[in-house]
Amino acid sequence: MLNFDYYNPTRISFGKGKISELDKLVPQGAKVLVLFGGSSARKTGTLDEVKQALGQRELVEFGGIEPNPTYETLMRAVEVVKAENIDFLLAVGGGSVIDGTKFVAAAAVFDGEPWDILLKWGANVTQAMPFGTVLTLPATGSEMNNASVVTRKSIKAKLPFRNDHVYPQFSILDPTKTYTLPERQVANGVVDAFVHITEQYLTYPVNAAVQDRIAEGLLQTLIELGPQVLANPDDYDIRANLMWVATTALNGTIGSGVPQDWATHMIGHELTALYNMDHARTLAVILPSLLTLTKEAKREKLLQFAHRVWRLDQGSDDEKIDLAITKTREFFEAMGIPTRLSDYDLGKQDVDAVIAQLEAHGMVALGEHENIDLAMSRDILTLSL
Amino acid sequence: MLNFDYYNPTRISFGKGKISELDKLVPQGAKVLVLFGGSSARKTGTLDEVKQALGQRELVEFGGIEPNPTYETLMRAVEVVKAENIDFLLAVGGGSVIDGTKFVAAAAVFDGEPWDILLKWGANVTQAMPFGTVLTLPATGSEMNNASVVTRKSIKAKLPFRNDHVYPQFSILDPTKTYTLPERQVANGVVDAFVHITEQYLTYPVNAAVQDRIAEGLLQTLIELGPQVLANPDDYDIRANLMWVATTALNGTIGSGVPQDWATHMIGHELTALYNMDHARTLAVILPSLLTLTKEAKREKLLQFAHRVWRLDQGSDDEKIDLAITKTREFFEAMGIPTRLSDYDLGKQDVDAVIAQLEAHGMVALGEHENIDLAMSRDILTLSL
Repeated sequence: MLNFDYYNPTRISFGKGKISELDKLVPQGAKVLVLFGGSSARKTGTLDEVKQALGQRELVEFGGIEPNPTYETLMRAVEVVKAENIDFLLAVGGGSVIDGTKFVAAAAVFDGEPWDILLKWGANVTQAMPFGTVLTLPATGSEMNNASVVTRKSIKAKLPFRNDHVYPQFSILDPTKTYTLPERQVANGVVDAFVHITEQYLTYPVNAAVQDRIAEGLLQTLIELGPQVLANPDDYDIRANLMWVATTALNGTIGSGVPQDWATHMIGHELTALYNMDHARTLAVILPSLLTLTKEAKREKLLQFAHRVWRLDQGSDDEKIDLAITKTREFFEAMGIPTRLSDYDLGKQDVDAVIAQLEAHGMVALGEHENIDLAMSRDILTLSL
Repeated sequence: MLNFDYYNPTRISFGKGKISELDKLVPQGAKVLVLFGGSSARKTGTLDEVKQALGQRELVEFGGIEPNPTYETLMRAVEVVKAENIDFLLAVGGGSVIDGTKFVAAAAVFDGEPWDILLKWGANVTQAMPFGTVLTLPATGSEMNNASVVTRKSIKAKLPFRNDHVYPQFSILDPTKTYTLPERQVANGVVDAFVHITEQYLTYPVNAAVQDRIAEGLLQTLIELGPQVLANPDDYDIRANLMWVATTALNGTIGSGVPQDWATHMIGHELTALYNMDHARTLAVILPSLLTLTKEAKREKLLQFAHRVWRLDQGSDDEKIDLAITKTREFFEAMGIPTRLSDYDLGKQDVDAVIAQLEAHGMVALGEHENIDLAMSRDILTLSL
């Protein structure tokens, strides 16, 4: 096991009816900016439930935070925070709204040009406004970590940052709030959580038995419940478990003390920035190809994945590994998510464009061995056609 | 899954050499009371390493915190805190030293008679001194939770309390510090962690797939590595994984959103208070009998335990359950821990004494169904003879 530091002070309030606890979680007398995405927060009644729970507090609404939240939109929220003397932020939504709120929390009190936060990966953040979240879309884990990804539309850049000051003070996870999600977003969430786990699990062994067993348990839960949620969208326990898997997948539990990959995410981010592909769909396209082409470096963990997660005990080691990768692809497809670039009308010429963006963003040494260079990224993308 | 609240702000610093980070974890200028147990902290050099890492800070030592720390000893530490104007506590040891330090942290600033903290299970604690820990004995999980157990020798009472104010600010877990532990303490730690997990896992099903999978992974890790640590006491990764299992077993990860039992602990506490039996040994004696006698109420989870943890797929359901309980007993015995009261020279007359203590302490409705009354406790103890 590698040495590690673990720290996660986010308070989780989990279960049906928990939105009512906002009144004790948000400081009395705070002037609150409620940040949300499109019209669904309003249509589903969640926004009203939130406002009612906040009681007499003065509220300002900021809607319109888009999927893959943009710097352009978020800087407008920063202006509202300053103009309205806001002192608490409340994100109501999924990973995009929460990621965006983290950026607003840091940017509103940042000394300098806030885009620098992204350019320095968050290392220059020394304070942030307090904020909480009401999660409506389980997927990214942003509700219980210190990471965020922001897109700058004008230069087609999608960049991450992380800093301990942007842990949510609390997150409310009410599984019933996910009943009304479109099937596409539910499927995306399952795949997103799955790949968050593989990014921390499918690397090379360091004898981290605890983290491995937990990662395997989370993957098994997704494989078991992912198809079930599509068939039984109103089953509370399925929703609750998928919600809690997605949070646990990226709150430090399985990532502490192990090497991490994240190449699939970095390549995927460029596909989203260039072609507006759903984040999870980029991961579903890239992961199978990446695993195929890094099979030797990931050999031992892929075998463990085949054995413990997919229960594959027949055939040669190579056959087991190949079958585990095939089953992973089939799982994504069974969730209704196509796994080829051609399924998204992208072709060879687009590979060049992605490689140019990776180069422009310095993504030239990706993966747990930092050996996925531009040539290897090109091979991965080509195999994904 | 049941509704739950999860909050755990303890910072973990894990790995070889991490004691050196004390300098950045303990406030500069703090006057520190270093609390420890017997002579081993001094003999092994850990105390010296801690003192060196604390640099120029003014230190006071308080040694002699016993296994099952006593109110009598801890109140002497409280006096030292007050007399010396201590402003930070540092526990160096295992669960007993850490539990004791939690009590000192709360009692030193408690308004009233500190024994009331135990009588009210901690509900009356409104503040506590800041403290950190350097863990040398993985077992109780106290290094990353808000719970503590204190014994009052004069009345042979061993009582728990919990409160969010007694989360350690940080805990340093250096697996190499466990190399010099006596085999008996290592074995006790493995069994203690095992039973912490079963207390939260072997109840009745609430479709908490995530918590179940994690609990099963932790149990499998203990079953796999427990015997190995006895054979290879200097293997870093075995030590690291056992240390991290013990912490994860009781930091809220597997206990959130599920029913909990804890009857084995409550009965075991009386055995320790009366006969000074090692805590883990009381658990190893009680658990197999308790599972046997609550088989019907725990049926579904016992079958899941048999199937997923012990991989038992042959025979009738009853046979699988009985074999899983037998294998659990055999695992404890393989760790060198006898599992019968008679192995500790206790007999029928001692059952009466334990029952009298349970009654005196109000332990008359134990377990996840609160249906383990004194008659059932008597049956469990009798079956443990």
